[in-house]
Amino acid sequence: MSPIEAYNELLNISRRLTVFSSFGALLGWDQRTYMPKYAGKYRAMQFAVLREYTYEVLTSDKFGEMLEIAEKGEFGLRERMNIYWWKRAHERLRKIPKELAIEEARVSSESENVWVEAKKTGDFELIKPYIKRIVEIKREIADALGYEGERYNALLDSYEPDLKAEEVERVFSHLKEETLKLLDRVLSSGKASKENLLRGNFPKDKQAEFCKYLLRSIGYDFGRGRLDETIHPFATRITPNDVRITTKYEEEFISPSIFGTLHEMGHGLYDMNLPEDMWGEPVGRAVSLSVHESQSRFWENIIGRSEAFWRRFYPDLQRHFEHFANIDLEDFLFAINEVKPSTIRIEADELTYNLHIILRFEIERDVINGKFDVEELPELWNEKFKNLFGFYPKNHSEGVLQDVHWYGGSFGYFPTYTLGNIISAQIFARMKEELPVYELVERGEFEPIILWLKHKIHSKGSLYKTKELIKEVTGEEIKSEYLVDYLRGKVERFYG
Amino acid sequence: MSPIEAYNELLNISRRLTVFSSFGALLGWDQRTYMPKYAGKYRAMQFAVLREYTYEVLTSDKFGEMLEIAEKGEFGLRERMNIYWWKRAHERLRKIPKELAIEEARVSSESENVWVEAKKTGDFELIKPYIKRIVEIKREIADALGYEGERYNALLDSYEPDLKAEEVERVFSHLKEETLKLLDRVLSSGKASKENLLRGNFPKDKQAEFCKYLLRSIGYDFGRGRLDETIHPFATRITPNDVRITTKYEEEFISPSIFGTLHEMGHGLYDMNLPEDMWGEPVGRAVSLSVHESQSRFWENIIGRSEAFWRRFYPDLQRHFEHFANIDLEDFLFAINEVKPSTIRIEADELTYNLHIILRFEIERDVINGKFDVEELPELWNEKFKNLFGFYPKNHSEGVLQDVHWYGGSFGYFPTYTLGNIISAQIFARMKEELPVYELVERGEFEPIILWLKHKIHSKGSLYKTKELIKEVTGEEIKSEYLVDYLRGKVERFYG
Repeated sequence: MSPIEAYNELLNISRRLTVFSSFGALLGWDQRTYMPKYAGKYRAMQFAVLREYTYEVLTSDKFGEMLEIAEKGEFGLRERMNIYWWKRAHERLRKIPKELAIEEARVSSESENVWVEAKKTGDFELIKPYIKRIVEIKREIADALGYEGERYNALLDSYEPDLKAEEVERVFSHLKEETLKLLDRVLSSGKASKENLLRGNFPKDKQAEFCKYLLRSIGYDFGRGRLDETIHPFATRITPNDVRITTKYEEEFISPSIFGTLHEMGHGLYDMNLPEDMWGEPVGRAVSLSVHESQSRFWENIIGRSEAFWRRFYPDLQRHFEHFANIDLEDFLFAINEVKPSTIRIEADELTYNLHIILRFEIERDVINGKFDVEELPELWNEKFKNLFGFYPKNHSEGVLQDVHWYGGSFGYFPTYTLGNIISAQIFARMKEELPVYELVERGEFEPIILWLKHKIHSKGSLYKTKELIKEVTGEEIKSEYLVDYLRGKVERFYG
Repeated sequence: MSPIEAYNELLNISRRLTVFSSFGALLGWDQRTYMPKYAGKYRAMQFAVLREYTYEVLTSDKFGEMLEIAEKGEFGLRERMNIYWWKRAHERLRKIPKELAIEEARVSSESENVWVEAKKTGDFELIKPYIKRIVEIKREIADALGYEGERYNALLDSYEPDLKAEEVERVFSHLKEETLKLLDRVLSSGKASKENLLRGNFPKDKQAEFCKYLLRSIGYDFGRGRLDETIHPFATRITPNDVRITTKYEEEFISPSIFGTLHEMGHGLYDMNLPEDMWGEPVGRAVSLSVHESQSRFWENIIGRSEAFWRRFYPDLQRHFEHFANIDLEDFLFAINEVKPSTIRIEADELTYNLHIILRFEIERDVINGKFDVEELPELWNEKFKNLFGFYPKNHSEGVLQDVHWYGGSFGYFPTYTLGNIISAQIFARMKEELPVYELVERGEFEPIILWLKHKIHSKGSLYKTKELIKEVTGEEIKSEYLVDYLRGKVERFYG
């Protein structure tokens, strides 16, 4: 078998696996939108069979042998990167003992269910045996995978290939320092809303209509996508012509649906604009979670909370909801940009959001590296939180138990959220050098912006790794200065 | 490898294939309900990959070898029947040359698209080259599969295992003769509706509400299913706890949604009550199209058009739709049971419906057997139609072009519709000996009826073949006498 033959055979396998994973995407979308209640039992089995098949194919000796042959070929970037991603998947899967992977899946799934109960009652003891076992398993997996530097790197690498905790620490520590300074300015300004203007009575149907109107105005293609309701909003790419987003409607609160929709639209535009002809190849996929998150945050925050955006759409919102008829644009803008430290990450404003993430990153890194024990998690959380925010969480439900990630087995995932924010601001700074972004937004001309993102980022798929891609797009390493500048601008705009 | 080991290995493969086919079911449901318009291109590819995988597994030498070993084992009915169905699938797939199967898929798909155009314009010439090739391919496939008696039997066997055209002819010819007599009585009675009471203005939402109310009242479990809107209604079983039905809403005509819903609910109840512990095995599936159709027809017609049913639900319908407030139950009953010969099968009443099927059966049988040429189809259709109904179709759109089946490659499918009607009446006759069916219906007590069907038919899966099952349930061969009696009863009730 020649390298080219081996490569082509790998390509065939990859294409089939991609189609199979598209079944998984549809199963996942369906589960979170329309699936009947009692179908869950078999849905889990459907996912398991799919995972098992993928695992068998990717870890097979035959796959490994073909990789070895293909690696000897002289190929261009696209082929080389495909081989790189195939090899990465093959090796990572083979390094984790099958029994460990099975135990991880089982424990994580059980633990997620127990977590629901623990969060409800604020009882950390209830979940403790599970999270202890999960951390042990995660450490074992990290050791099986191997790493440079610290153990946590092996887990971080699962979500953000090639990124090291030290690098994250470097960008985060500057961001943390500057954020705390800005927060001081906000708190000492004494400026705060008296009532939340974003609360009222907003029927679901009307919210859905308005969200669809926004999506259409921006240029999300309903011929290749949908907007549906769900509990925890997500975007999913089933095939290149089938990218679906979801949002949630709170009838007494307008924010979640609008900003949730814009957030998921950001993910969706990335997925829609990935290189279609590379579908079925690793290089045809989005490169990483942090770049994905940069796209969602760009639309949710940088565009969606901007004055320009609402100069364009506030009159429409006022026409659509009587509630806003007598509320000034300026008051609305303050409401959607108000900085208000709270214990809950997902309700956080743009500024304090990153403090929530940095807190989680520092804790999970130390726990995985063995610097602290799982027993100490609640205490650690409360003290760190107090240090950053100046007050303690009321209880564990608003503290260490608030997010499902750890209890569902995700360690190394949290940093990608703030990396997404950092990257979105860095990209935005570059974009502004080439496009009059907010002028376009105010005129409702979104196409140049979408095309810029498509050309610079989306259409690149995974031809470059995250750090290379950002270097290529912005000419610089990933750095938090742009996000800090952007946040400073916001604070000055609204808090003087 | 021992027979038991081989059997268990086959079982593992079968379970995986069943899960894979559940992906296909979800893909199909999604395609016909919520899929974005332009996703179709990749959806076709998703189906193709799934088919290809299934084909590879089922036709593999390994699968054949394990079958040979397993066949030597001494097993009970369940295992023996699983082996029987596996072997049947394996052999049938292997007999058809791969190139022929691929050509069939391609030509059928192209032809379906051309048919849409041909039907619109009534232009048989447009579709002629396609249908010619399809008939050639079908004959080749029949010859490759082999058959006893006539060539058409090989195709009939695809939809209705072990059934022969001669047997169909026997039950159909009695039905045809008696139907024509009954039709004479209807036409000579001079009784006909002046206006169609079922037409009016019925908003979609309100129809959906009423259909869901009916489903809940009868006992369709929304925890394990859904009702959605589609163009050509269908029912589909994704997993044992996920059986979804669909209907269509015509805003100016109430019948399609109500009777469509009841029809699909009949399919759905069968699918919901198949033996859950046999999911993944061939014996866990519905036995055949005709038995499936018997279940849908039972609920749509025998129950759904009965006086008892509407004694129970007509007051609800009247409350729900102002339109019926001043229409007598008796007039409504006449409207939903009126016999009115027309050219269109899917709009036909209970009596003339079977004439439409018998016409198609006779034609397709002769064409496949080579008694007629494809060129003669339109002429053949018109003459046969005139013989049965007494008038000619206005054009080919209402004639030979009206149904997609042949143009999509389905020959041997049509008889299962009328066999379903025949079986539904035969089962009903037996059920009435054990249950006061219409009394229960009038009291809104559907559970005993559903449990009877579950016990006698649904829970049997494919442990027996159609003819054996009907013999077991009713003590008799499949015969049309019961349907004729039932239809005669209807005619006498409404036409004296």
